Amino acid sequence: MFNLDSRLEADTFFIADLKISKLLLMNDSGYLWLILVPKEPNLVELTDLSFAKQTQVLEEINLVGKIIKEEFGFQKLNIAALGNVVKQLHIHVIGRNEDDAVFPKPVWGHSVIKPYKKEEAEKLVNKIRELL
Amino acid sequence: MFNLDSRLEADTFFIADLKISKLLLMNDSGYLWLILVPKEPNLVELTDLSFAKQTQVLEEINLVGKIIKEEFGFQKLNIAALGNVVKQLHIHVIGRNEDDAVFPKPVWGHSVIKPYKKEEAEKLVNKIRELL
Repeated sequence: MFNLDSRLEADTFFIADLKISKLLLMNDSGYLWLILVPKEPNLVELTDLSFAKQTQVLEEINLVGKIIKEEFGFQKLNIAALGNVVKQLHIHVIGRNEDDAVFPKPVWGHSVIKPYKKEEAEKLVNKIRELL
Repeated sequence: MFNLDSRLEADTFFIADLKISKLLLMNDSGYLWLILVPKEPNLVELTDLSFAKQTQVLEEINLVGKIIKEEFGFQKLNIAALGNVVKQLHIHVIGRNEDDAVFPKPVWGHSVIKPYKKEEAEKLVNKIRELL
């Protein structure tokens, strides 16, 4: 039985249930910071998934990466599965711009979180849903 | 024509030419920090590769991830394609331990590089070659 980690739930907005992953929006308006969480119990490493399912996650990374770059016009993708703090497998797909707050540093451990206003987040979530 | 980025070349030791990627060892002894560089010219994003080649990169991520966890016994993998500083597409596959110098922070922008001694690096490169 899959349950979303409580910290991931607290730090994000739900966007959609994709085929393999739950798609979430990180509540940090400094970037377009999306998170894919494969919906299987007890996953920690990407390599814990079967190779067939990993390739499906890869399809979902391509899908959201394309939205970030082509629809929202971000300059660079940062794609990462770290899991040093939240153990549940989750893959960050983040749109970065060269003038964002911490570029060229990675966001983790550097970004000072700027939460979205409620309406801003709702509007963005709806826009992303339409693009999926 | 593929040419390895000069900064990647300066910061790493060459391990092997895999099917799709060059496998490199980052010259930072604080972790087991491997880098895969797909050998096609002009790649920046993972999504610049065809999906078929992305899945082959994924195979190579699994191969080196397995070596890091199962042969070297590291506790956690950090897998990432960032490219904010070095633009040439490269994928980090890093073995982390909870008692390493910067855990749970990511290594980028936090690690103070501890270069290998020459003999240490040679020994490690040879060991990894045997495990491939």
